Amino acid sequence: MTTNQLISEIRKKKSFLCIGLDVDLNKIPSHLLQEEDPIFAFNKAIIDATHHLCVAYKPNTAFYEAYGLKGWKALEKTIQYLNENYPEIFTIADAKRGDIGNTSTMYAKAFFEDLGFDSVTVAPYMGKDSVEPFLAFEDKHTILLALTSNEGAYDFQTLSVNNNELYKEVLKVSKTWKNSQNLMYVVGATKAEYLVDIRKIIPDSFLLVPGVGAQGGNLQEVCKYGMNKNVGLLINSSRGIIYGSNKEDFAVIAAHKALELQQEMQTILNNSSVNLN
Amino acid sequence: MTTNQLISEIRKKKSFLCIGLDVDLNKIPSHLLQEEDPIFAFNKAIIDATHHLCVAYKPNTAFYEAYGLKGWKALEKTIQYLNENYPEIFTIADAKRGDIGNTSTMYAKAFFEDLGFDSVTVAPYMGKDSVEPFLAFEDKHTILLALTSNEGAYDFQTLSVNNNELYKEVLKVSKTWKNSQNLMYVVGATKAEYLVDIRKIIPDSFLLVPGVGAQGGNLQEVCKYGMNKNVGLLINSSRGIIYGSNKEDFAVIAAHKALELQQEMQTILNNSSVNLN
Repeated sequence: MTTNQLISEIRKKKSFLCIGLDVDLNKIPSHLLQEEDPIFAFNKAIIDATHHLCVAYKPNTAFYEAYGLKGWKALEKTIQYLNENYPEIFTIADAKRGDIGNTSTMYAKAFFEDLGFDSVTVAPYMGKDSVEPFLAFEDKHTILLALTSNEGAYDFQTLSVNNNELYKEVLKVSKTWKNSQNLMYVVGATKAEYLVDIRKIIPDSFLLVPGVGAQGGNLQEVCKYGMNKNVGLLINSSRGIIYGSNKEDFAVIAAHKALELQQEMQTILNNSSVNLN
Repeated sequence: MTTNQLISEIRKKKSFLCIGLDVDLNKIPSHLLQEEDPIFAFNKAIIDATHHLCVAYKPNTAFYEAYGLKGWKALEKTIQYLNENYPEIFTIADAKRGDIGNTSTMYAKAFFEDLGFDSVTVAPYMGKDSVEPFLAFEDKHTILLALTSNEGAYDFQTLSVNNNELYKEVLKVSKTWKNSQNLMYVVGATKAEYLVDIRKIIPDSFLLVPGVGAQGGNLQEVCKYGMNKNVGLLINSSRGIIYGSNKEDFAVIAAHKALELQQEMQTILNNSSVNLN
């Protein structure tokens, strides 16, 4: 999917919501455990109930790997279901991969070619040649960790290098890499005011923003400081949407929660300078 | 496996060799492609031919994920085969994972509990709460990326923070974390002289050293600067051992290549101050 197709979808749906599909068998409704593939059954129900309210889905691979082969199979079925039934949806493999060049190429093939995701999250620590193999894929997107939403973000990401915090150096350096027009960034919502400086470095890039809701981030603040003329934001919510109920009504409740966020986003968009046509 | 068990195995075998099982179907002998599971067939033959010459095996997960479900299944079979037949071998999932706390716990369960690896490589960028869930597992080991062997290592890892390179800050900070006695570090062999300063910060930790051979690192130099009283080194070789031949004799040739390295290690150990009894 191209960035323009993503922007067009945001305009159409008046939504820049990404739903995190972090499926934990201890948290899903117990009646689903009788299904042949409870993880996929849960995802399918959530997707069918919410696809008109969001523009992206983001399974975090940890939750699938934790269930071994059956987890990996559920991940395959989920992305296949999305690509077949909702090809307009932007898909994110939240995998936080990154390795030496030839090995990163294997990861890129796994997520972009074999599984068919539109994008994958990548860790920056190993530098340029660990990221460029992902960037080499046309119409695919690499979402680089910049400033994450957890407490540990302050251990290294905010240390001062070259009179700048490390995460700003990651932004500055990475935007010079080959095919960097395919780069997006992870920026945690818990530090909305940081977005002012971030937008000075990367005014046009899309930002994937976790941490709204369960982790304490504020949507209004994030949009105030982080939105650009093409919106440029994907706001992720996982637990706040998918675990609203653990009963038979779980998908209906998920749709309610997603609608609340979509409505809030629509109001923000209507009051913004973003061209919605 | 405990660190003492690993040290005891190193003494017994006079080897601190780790063999990287990075299986690429384009590089393995073509006769294996007729097997039901060519990846596992290749690994089993390599393991059976080399287990007496090395103390660790390290599959890089990228090479398995690239083959989807059948790749993941081959990884499961490989670790299961190792644990059943060679329980004295230290096993490393070279996965370079790391995520926010509850998600890192899922990864730790996947690699330590479900798959049964002794250790997993982890990226440091997301800080303490992304690493501690791995450290929480008793008799399991977390191998944190410090200084990698690729060119991109110079993009961020060697930037100056707090009057120190970032990778040294990673060493200093991480050794204060909970259960840090379970921490090992990845340090690329291509920068052997860096090991002098590294050993000042972490004199006792085991270092996993990639980059000997194909990537240009020198074994003698690494040992000169990096060895401690318990050896404290695991030297990895992947391509140099497993792809010595792509004919029917591949396992025999792999054993020859492994023996060459083991013999070199034995000479180094005999000339060192390491207590081998």
